[in-house]
Amino acid sequence: MFITLEGMDGSGKTTAIAKIKEALETRGFEVLFTREPGGEPVAEQIRNLILANNSQGIDGWTEALLFLAARNEHLDKVIVPALNKGIVVISDRFMDSTSAYQGNAREIGIENVDEVQRIVIGKYIPDLTIYFRLDRDEAERRMNVREEEKNRLDKETMDFKNKVSEGYEILIKNNPHRFRVVNANLSIDEVQMQTEKIILEALNNYVKK
Amino acid sequence: MFITLEGMDGSGKTTAIAKIKEALETRGFEVLFTREPGGEPVAEQIRNLILANNSQGIDGWTEALLFLAARNEHLDKVIVPALNKGIVVISDRFMDSTSAYQGNAREIGIENVDEVQRIVIGKYIPDLTIYFRLDRDEAERRMNVREEEKNRLDKETMDFKNKVSEGYEILIKNNPHRFRVVNANLSIDEVQMQTEKIILEALNNYVKK
Repeated sequence: MFITLEGMDGSGKTTAIAKIKEALETRGFEVLFTREPGGEPVAEQIRNLILANNSQGIDGWTEALLFLAARNEHLDKVIVPALNKGIVVISDRFMDSTSAYQGNAREIGIENVDEVQRIVIGKYIPDLTIYFRLDRDEAERRMNVREEEKNRLDKETMDFKNKVSEGYEILIKNNPHRFRVVNANLSIDEVQMQTEKIILEALNNYVKK
Repeated sequence: MFITLEGMDGSGKTTAIAKIKEALETRGFEVLFTREPGGEPVAEQIRNLILANNSQGIDGWTEALLFLAARNEHLDKVIVPALNKGIVVISDRFMDSTSAYQGNAREIGIENVDEVQRIVIGKYIPDLTIYFRLDRDEAERRMNVREEEKNRLDKETMDFKNKVSEGYEILIKNNPHRFRVVNANLSIDEVQMQTEKIILEALNNYVKK
């Protein structure tokens, strides 16, 4: 079973999942937790290339294709070998990040990016994707952005983040059977409990099949 | 007008086109000759990353996506700005190289790679693509491969090259209105004459439209 976690930075997904590892292993599930780009050398080189150039006016599609290349190497070298051994894989970020960030927020077309990813990823579309939904005002509060400190850059950043959130909502609407949503406005403990419940239910249903 | 040149290494396409620049400019055409990755810094970084890893078991799709990312940056920063100024652009290699080499020869699916490229490249599909068709025995002769020197690697290389040629033939069959074929088995002068004739005819027809 292949599970992915999606959401904005600050939504608590990484913190939530770290605490769940023990709960899953206690119940006898063999689980691989991974996080893009996943420590795979070529994927890391690609990620470094993106970071080194992301203030240089790199085109949206170039950025998306580089993320897809890094993702594909992570998938081929880390995720697929684990799935083939019957190990449950939980990846912090996967295909929906590029659809939301580059597809919707960088405006190259969420359907275009989604279509390209379906061709590249093929049969490894996740079985379950958990979206950590955080209200924009709560996200702002967590980022400690004070009204008087906002400048042009903050404004652009805020518009961009709104488009990322909007992108995720489109993906949820288009893939209702794959997505489950966690209310990420709650406390860390409550976010963790919701996430654990969703994953355990999904794993139990998957085992029964 | 956007023209691309395709074919195996050794097919004489680069030599042929170098001699045509003057003929076109004499006739009053403003022409930009470019060659992938096109000197664009991000595209060059991506190409270096591919070359540094191409013996490391990099997945076929990872390689294809990296070539597409480099191509997209070359397109965005070099080709499109020239086309927008009304300049004729002739690119040594473009989308069909990835369809033939990664799609067919690396077996990730020529139709899959072609479909992804149509989404990414959008309206910048070439108006004309000249394929330099070289018979496999003539290609071998040019590579000076002697029978007794062939080892396992040469055998693999030959299979790979046959699949690249096969890939190009599929692309020509699927895109008859875009492709024109040059007989690259002939002398350099004859290859150049055929190429010049095709380009001039296409440019004259394009101007008339």
